[in-house]
Amino acid sequence: MKIYDVPNFPNPLRVRIALAEKGALSHAQFVDVDVMNGEHRTPDFLEKNPTGAIPVLELDDGTYISECSAIIEYIDHTFDGPSLTGDDPKHRAIVTMQQRRMESMVLDAVAAYFHHATDGLGPALETNQNPAWGEQQKQLALKGLDYANQVLAQQAYIAGEQFSVADITLHAGLVFAAFANIEIPQQLTHLKAWQDKVSQRPSFQS
Amino acid sequence: MKIYDVPNFPNPLRVRIALAEKGALSHAQFVDVDVMNGEHRTPDFLEKNPTGAIPVLELDDGTYISECSAIIEYIDHTFDGPSLTGDDPKHRAIVTMQQRRMESMVLDAVAAYFHHATDGLGPALETNQNPAWGEQQKQLALKGLDYANQVLAQQAYIAGEQFSVADITLHAGLVFAAFANIEIPQQLTHLKAWQDKVSQRPSFQS
Repeated sequence: MKIYDVPNFPNPLRVRIALAEKGALSHAQFVDVDVMNGEHRTPDFLEKNPTGAIPVLELDDGTYISECSAIIEYIDHTFDGPSLTGDDPKHRAIVTMQQRRMESMVLDAVAAYFHHATDGLGPALETNQNPAWGEQQKQLALKGLDYANQVLAQQAYIAGEQFSVADITLHAGLVFAAFANIEIPQQLTHLKAWQDKVSQRPSFQS
Repeated sequence: MKIYDVPNFPNPLRVRIALAEKGALSHAQFVDVDVMNGEHRTPDFLEKNPTGAIPVLELDDGTYISECSAIIEYIDHTFDGPSLTGDDPKHRAIVTMQQRRMESMVLDAVAAYFHHATDGLGPALETNQNPAWGEQQKQLALKGLDYANQVLAQQAYIAGEQFSVADITLHAGLVFAAFANIEIPQQLTHLKAWQDKVSQRPSFQS
């Protein structure tokens, strides 16, 4: 499989961690996309993913899969190792719910702040900014972090007692928040303790 | 199981169609949430779903599942009948990808337009409008409809030759678009033909 991505960007990081959790990093060939020069908006890339978002997984039969939740589901169901997306209908539903919350309440909210209310990727790429929307999404992100902290006061991981894709999404959100200078409020001690814990996973070093 | 929802609202409609597709409508007890009087923003409802979004599924053991993608995944894996979310890793990834695209490019974009750039649910509930954001999301919705039309020129359904949750999401997006007075452009003939076809499914009458 090929993965079109940008090293160190938050969404590609999610897929790299998922591959590492499954011990499958060596199965993927990574192809850099030159986002800073707008390669993700070329017709060639939009053929691969009409939304222009990165990463994109290309299967050996030429099928393109985008959307991190879909890519990670594929990885989880293709390689051995502990499940990242849940083992039975109830567990899967909880993981899907929490993963989606960590996207909408944290990662996507931080991204909206970054792209709309800061310089983002620079004037050549940020051509449609809406600072008020970005600031509102920053407030949502802070509420999302507070929600994550409440969840982590009750259980070891975001979707229960088992590490899952929801934790990967939250981690990517915190990485993006740090890059966008959104500070995690000091009082969110459960979130900070979780961050220290997951950061020690071998998959987070890759 | 209980489902907290509002009849005829677009997101609740998704879950009702999924239940009907699985022949499982009679397994659910529906509980009306009085959104127009803000019941979804009360502490009692936010206990069930901290995002305040509807619908919410309550399992018999008291677990609350929100996010339509998670609720429908649960329904799909709990009841018999043709799969709505995919049968194998590749098919599941494609369905998840297309479902997510139909959310972000159509249904959620229409919702953002409705809540930010029209009267929405009225001044008591729409307290944080951003008309420029709403208008931008309307343009995204129109692009999303155009994308769906291109997909449906090539294949019978949004995620391939088989009806799936991605079709349910697109249908809810079209229902919401009609309510918000976003007209489907006449030239999107494949989309219109798909709409005529799926509208005849018994599940769409329930």
